[in-house]
Amino acid sequence: MTDYRNLRVALLGAGSVGSQTARLLLEHADELASRVGARLELAGVAVRNLSATRDVQLPAELYTTDAEALIESSDIVVELMGGIEPARTYIIQALTSGADVITANKALLAEHGTELFALADRVGAQLYYEASVAAAIPILRPLRDSLAGDRINRVMGIVNGSTNYILDRMDRYGDSAEDAAQTALELGFLEADPTLDVEGFDAAQKVTILASLAFHTRVPVSAVYREGITGVTLDQIRAAKNAGYVIKLLAIAERLTDPETGADAISARVYPALISREHPLASVYEGKNAVFVEAEAAGSLMFYGAGAGGVETASAVMGDLVSAARRHVAGGPGLAQNAHADLPLLPVGAINTRYHITLRVADEPGVLARVASVLATHGVSVENVLQTVPDAADADGTATLVIGTHTAREAALAATVKELAVIGVVRAVSSVLRVEGI
Amino acid sequence: MTDYRNLRVALLGAGSVGSQTARLLLEHADELASRVGARLELAGVAVRNLSATRDVQLPAELYTTDAEALIESSDIVVELMGGIEPARTYIIQALTSGADVITANKALLAEHGTELFALADRVGAQLYYEASVAAAIPILRPLRDSLAGDRINRVMGIVNGSTNYILDRMDRYGDSAEDAAQTALELGFLEADPTLDVEGFDAAQKVTILASLAFHTRVPVSAVYREGITGVTLDQIRAAKNAGYVIKLLAIAERLTDPETGADAISARVYPALISREHPLASVYEGKNAVFVEAEAAGSLMFYGAGAGGVETASAVMGDLVSAARRHVAGGPGLAQNAHADLPLLPVGAINTRYHITLRVADEPGVLARVASVLATHGVSVENVLQTVPDAADADGTATLVIGTHTAREAALAATVKELAVIGVVRAVSSVLRVEGI
Ligand SMILES: NC(=O)c1ccc[n+]([C@@H]2O[C@H](COP(=O)([O-])OP(=O)(O)OC[C@H]3O[C@@H](n4cnc5c(N)ncnc54)[C@H](OP(=O)(O)O)[C@@H]3O)[C@@H](O)[C@H]2O)c1
Ligand SMILES: NC(=O)c1ccc[n+]([C@@H]2O[C@H](COP(=O)([O-])OP(=O)(O)OC[C@H]3O[C@@H](n4cnc5c(N)ncnc54)[C@H](OP(=O)(O)O)[C@@H]3O)[C@@H](O)[C@H]2O)c1
Repeated sequence: MTDYRNLRVALLGAGSVGSQTARLLLEHADELASRVGARLELAGVAVRNLSATRDVQLPAELYTTDAEALIESSDIVVELMGGIEPARTYIIQALTSGADVITANKALLAEHGTELFALADRVGAQLYYEASVAAAIPILRPLRDSLAGDRINRVMGIVNGSTNYILDRMDRYGDSAEDAAQTALELGFLEADPTLDVEGFDAAQKVTILASLAFHTRVPVSAVYREGITGVTLDQIRAAKNAGYVIKLLAIAERLTDPETGADAISARVYPALISREHPLASVYEGKNAVFVEAEAAGSLMFYGAGAGGVETASAVMGDLVSAARRHVAGGPGLAQNAHADLPLLPVGAINTRYHITLRVADEPGVLARVASVLATHGVSVENVLQTVPDAADADGTATLVIGTHTAREAALAATVKELAVIGVVRAVSSVLRVEGI
Repeated sequence: MTDYRNLRVALLGAGSVGSQTARLLLEHADELASRVGARLELAGVAVRNLSATRDVQLPAELYTTDAEALIESSDIVVELMGGIEPARTYIIQALTSGADVITANKALLAEHGTELFALADRVGAQLYYEASVAAAIPILRPLRDSLAGDRINRVMGIVNGSTNYILDRMDRYGDSAEDAAQTALELGFLEADPTLDVEGFDAAQKVTILASLAFHTRVPVSAVYREGITGVTLDQIRAAKNAGYVIKLLAIAERLTDPETGADAISARVYPALISREHPLASVYEGKNAVFVEAEAAGSLMFYGAGAGGVETASAVMGDLVSAARRHVAGGPGLAQNAHADLPLLPVGAINTRYHITLRVADEPGVLARVASVLATHGVSVENVLQTVPDAADADGTATLVIGTHTAREAALAATVKELAVIGVVRAVSSVLRVEGI
């Protein structure tokens, strides 16, 4: 047996992800040692409650409530507690003491990433966070390293498993939004408080992380345009299906041209949108995640896999841990983060995309002409129109008009919809959905 | 403008990939410099023919036929000539002189990888080769780094675009094999000499590279079991389609248990196989590539994108180039390759998979019982049976029997088929295809 030096690994948290990370570390100790060239010694596991019963059995002496002492005596610190505090303080302590840090904490990175990366750079330590976006899927390292010599134009991800599960149930099984959410809750796809997921906050946190890696720039999470899935109806999903689309909650980070300056700018946004059933993202079912990347040279790429789960997330944590450990063994400085571009962030009004507008209109001659003229006034051009004649269900004698537009500027579309809502022949604007993907 | 030091980059080859790499290097020079912290100076481009007209216009003074002098004066050498010699000699020269090397040359790595990686380790230089498998798709770095703390059980890839294009035409458009190959040739998906592609040699080269990264072990390309697509008929594809499957040429590297020793062993193989239309690999169309990975903790992952093309492949080369350059700037030793496991390679007879067997049988009572008893003798259990009665097309009065088996050992299946071929009621074994994916 080779004699290796030991690297002391501190684990902060032993919940879904932490306990699985501890298990993998202990079970694969020999294999990891030979891959790394050093033994990864689990120095301790910080928790709140020493007497909790846990999924994975670890030697009792590993647990501690004294996270600070544990951090102080470790080479690598793995933060899997979640939340802002004390996670932030512990990471700062670890980096300051020269330890490399691994975290899966998207909420913390979205809020305080700038501060933490700057600190890591200053002290020459590394902060790894592959698990923070799309759990098991290797997406951050490919964006940072594999595509480092290319120019990424767009990242479009299904990065929240809970909402994908709900939308998929509605689409493939015809469940109502309520039934789908209930099933998601029962199967553990949804938290007791689903707000973070269904309102798109979780996806917004992830899009800030994706955008900063893809465009070498910082995006404050508060600046991300965000719509959740609570407004998505079964009717919309059915209509989308009939037209060859599926509705997915998309997290999009895109390179645009600033119309004022002509220079590069970016957009970061989260909303439910139609995508064609031919698009690779359309067959991302259940709680799976996928990130679709468009780059100048590479063309279209997709990364697909489990977007949540204790053991799946632990896989990504372990990958970071091995990278950190190899660096310790090889020696030499870490690679600095380089968010050097500082591109301006444009509001959602500046994006260009296609739209599906569903209107309830009077069933009388000339309606289409009237509606079309409103679109024309705002420079929005029509790609296709579907008009249904009133049937038994339309007791009020109104017809449904579905308009698919060509690419238009969001601001022009918003103005169009505003005007459509008040012209006489339109009884109601039932739905406006963006269409994404080629 | 920041003052950077220069890193001298030698390019060997200015064909499809080389010329696009040169273009990206020159066009994105400033952006790359700020990402790397050093300017990547294109020191020269070695070619055979100085007066050839090329797709991308570069300053004439960059071209040289003296590759050796160019290598001698460079920090990083990018080999995009292809072939075994002189590529091998040049890479050896470059590594020996302390330069990092980037290559897309799967043929060379499959034949001489062991020698080249050992040399790189010895001299402390790095050999990068992301572009050698699945071109633009970041797959090697995720296998090596992101999944380094996990245990990969299986890698299953569509890694040859030409054959995927042909099979896809046959499946989706009902083209004959000849028509599909003709279209592939016209569209540049197939080389004038298609042997490397259609006989599975190219995929076999790639599976050795995938297996060595996934299992930290070396696999000689000569040991890869290999069947190409030349035996795949439109009838088989149609029958597969009816049964809910699609036929894809799969490159598979799998962790198995050695039946003799009970220890880990691996299988590396290339063959056309049925996969369910629900499987993520089933919707990889045209010349696209995808690699499906199953790992113990991460579960199922898929990496999808362009598997060929000059500019797409150049994207992966550029990613490696930036990694190499960042390492030069940061200083410190490179990370050693670690093919430490040296797992035994099992023959194809040792694998376990499912099968579809198509037989032409006499249309008489008791045939199914007779056939089933042959399977039972060899321990192969039947999952489903489809027997068609003879119709107008069956002038000889034979019926078709399609048997889907449960998972069976390949050796048992082979013995079964051998016996089936000689029993009286079986007129012919029309087709035996493996079924892969869950
Ligand atoms: N679960 C997933 O699928 C998933 C996927 C991707 C990313 N993540 C991220 O991974 C992180 C961990 O998630 P999780 O699901 O594993 O969380 P969890 O199950 O809630 O576990 C949290 C753990 O941290 C410990 N902890 C919390 N506050 C602490 C404190 N002040 N001092 C010491 N220990 C403390 C808890 O101790 P006690 O057990 O004693 O209460 C518990 O063991 C989060 O940032 C999450 O966003 C999770
Ligand atoms: N093309 C793809 O889609 C693709 C995808 C993945 C990987 N790859 C790999 O990338 C590598 C390059 O492929 P490619 O398609 O770019 O090849 P290519 O178009 O045939 O270009 C080869 C280049 O190398 C030069 N060259 C050949 N032998 C030379 C020698 N002895 N000395 C100096 N220069 C020499 C040629 O010079 P002249 O121009 O003067 O003849 C030419 O510029 C190969 O290993 C290939 O397997 C290619």
